Amino acid sequence: MSPNTPDGAETVAEVGEFGLIERITRGRQQPRSTLLGPGDDAAVVAAPDGRVVACTDVLVEGVHFRLDWSNPDHVGRKAVAVNLADIAAMGAVPTAVLVGLACPSGTSAAVVDQLTAGMWHEAARARVGVVGGDLTEAPTLVISITALGDLRGRKPVTRGGAMPGDVVAVAGRLGWSAAGLAVLGRGFRSPVSVVGAHRAPEPPYPAGPQAADAGATAMIDVSDGLLADLGHIGTASNVAIDIRGDLIEVHQRLVDVAAALGGDPRHWVLTGGEDHALAATFPDPAGVPDGWRTIGTVTRGNGVTVDGVPYTGAAGWQHWR
Amino acid sequence: MSPNTPDGAETVAEVGEFGLIERITRGRQQPRSTLLGPGDDAAVVAAPDGRVVACTDVLVEGVHFRLDWSNPDHVGRKAVAVNLADIAAMGAVPTAVLVGLACPSGTSAAVVDQLTAGMWHEAARARVGVVGGDLTEAPTLVISITALGDLRGRKPVTRGGAMPGDVVAVAGRLGWSAAGLAVLGRGFRSPVSVVGAHRAPEPPYPAGPQAADAGATAMIDVSDGLLADLGHIGTASNVAIDIRGDLIEVHQRLVDVAAALGGDPRHWVLTGGEDHALAATFPDPAGVPDGWRTIGTVTRGNGVTVDGVPYTGAAGWQHWR
Repeated sequence: MSPNTPDGAETVAEVGEFGLIERITRGRQQPRSTLLGPGDDAAVVAAPDGRVVACTDVLVEGVHFRLDWSNPDHVGRKAVAVNLADIAAMGAVPTAVLVGLACPSGTSAAVVDQLTAGMWHEAARARVGVVGGDLTEAPTLVISITALGDLRGRKPVTRGGAMPGDVVAVAGRLGWSAAGLAVLGRGFRSPVSVVGAHRAPEPPYPAGPQAADAGATAMIDVSDGLLADLGHIGTASNVAIDIRGDLIEVHQRLVDVAAALGGDPRHWVLTGGEDHALAATFPDPAGVPDGWRTIGTVTRGNGVTVDGVPYTGAAGWQHWR
Repeated sequence: MSPNTPDGAETVAEVGEFGLIERITRGRQQPRSTLLGPGDDAAVVAAPDGRVVACTDVLVEGVHFRLDWSNPDHVGRKAVAVNLADIAAMGAVPTAVLVGLACPSGTSAAVVDQLTAGMWHEAARARVGVVGGDLTEAPTLVISITALGDLRGRKPVTRGGAMPGDVVAVAGRLGWSAAGLAVLGRGFRSPVSVVGAHRAPEPPYPAGPQAADAGATAMIDVSDGLLADLGHIGTASNVAIDIRGDLIEVHQRLVDVAAALGGDPRHWVLTGGEDHALAATFPDPAGVPDGWRTIGTVTRGNGVTVDGVPYTGAAGWQHWR
């Protein structure tokens, strides 16, 4: 257990639950969709569509993040970002997050301030409210975020609608977080571009509704790795997916990092999770929207291949495995 | 850390994340408000009112529950109940919950089965869907629940609308959970009525919308204790609240338990949390709905008194204090 408390720093126990809530919420701006923000039994958020999209993700210190590799501000940004990406992957516009935060009584109050500042930062970037939450004690720092979103009349884009003949496309960065993790794992702190991508991803939120408007038949947030997450679309849609290797862009920065560390940058792009890019299938190759990159096709059958062949690297991530 | 794993029992690591999700969700019924349930990036829930009420609560093993005092089924019920009570306290009808569950890799899969069975049980009792969630690894068992609700055209009832001249009323049980905790703390397991009330509260969900329809000016879920939570209404509404001692019912069962253990049953009723009763203020004494019990009045000033005098017992609960 990392104590996260410099000597002499004020702890959450000293500030107290209600004092912390005051520090976290005081003076913060809410978007218009926040009809009733923090401080009551529950929040009220606009859901003009008449349906609400909702997801939740739990991040645990030592499992999902390390406070010696990321500062609390990064962790707060990431915790919000991974949830907003899930909302975008349904074709919805994120509207709000709720924050559950459990930490040891000896945690520095400054850590909580920075964590929540990161959450507010990412929420503001996506124009969503931080509408409520819960603060409590636990032996380990655990962050639980729930995100809400509005479909604005769109049909939700599930993982299950891909059809043979569709094209596969992605929006957002791939492999950057894996490269950053490789750098940190070797004890380095730079290049900051890839380390920053690992610490706090910047998912392309608007690309989700954009894909829905363009008729996307299936969509997923790339959290486990491109091939693993395309596998989830394949399974849910009962189709096979083939990626064209020549369409997989490997950014020069990843090539450089891999050369320095001895890794395979293409492996990062194909299997690295946590960039929270979006992957989707579209019926019409000409209808793939701007900002999306076509990388393959949907066919009959099952499984995910690269140039017709199963990829032999490790694909994706399961907990407790 | 309690391992929660009998020798030879299958662990969550052996079943794996996707296997567990399959076990948890297979064959479960969803209400009509669940438009898209678990298994995709996010769920879709009906929000016919055009607004969604949302709250979140985190329960930590060893802090909020003990698996030697409650079985996992009780803990699952309670985790859902405390959140649905918050939704009801806004005057809304609960529609859905999302579940974040973090546990050690060696946790028995049967514990997760029972925990989630308890969640489904309470959700079914309230006719809400279990629409999504997240399963992950952590050194300690942590349950994070988010509940959603629909106002059905009602104005949300906050803590801030009580006015001098209003009457104060409660719905649901008070003091039972505290009595059960006292019993368990002394090493006993009965009477089951109070122990059961501590293990799994049964909040009066319909009383929330009922109070809103009756013109309730303020409402709160009694989670910290009656006086503490009325204090929250008093602070938010900038009013004083006086409870009439002769209107505080102390059930004979609590009297009996207190006689056996040497406690004060009235103290449990006034300060015991976790029964998740509802407390509300109403402008018209004659308008207090059936099932609600009038216990006091709202006056000018601040603070909470019993028969005009501040109560001198410890009132309520804060984390890390």
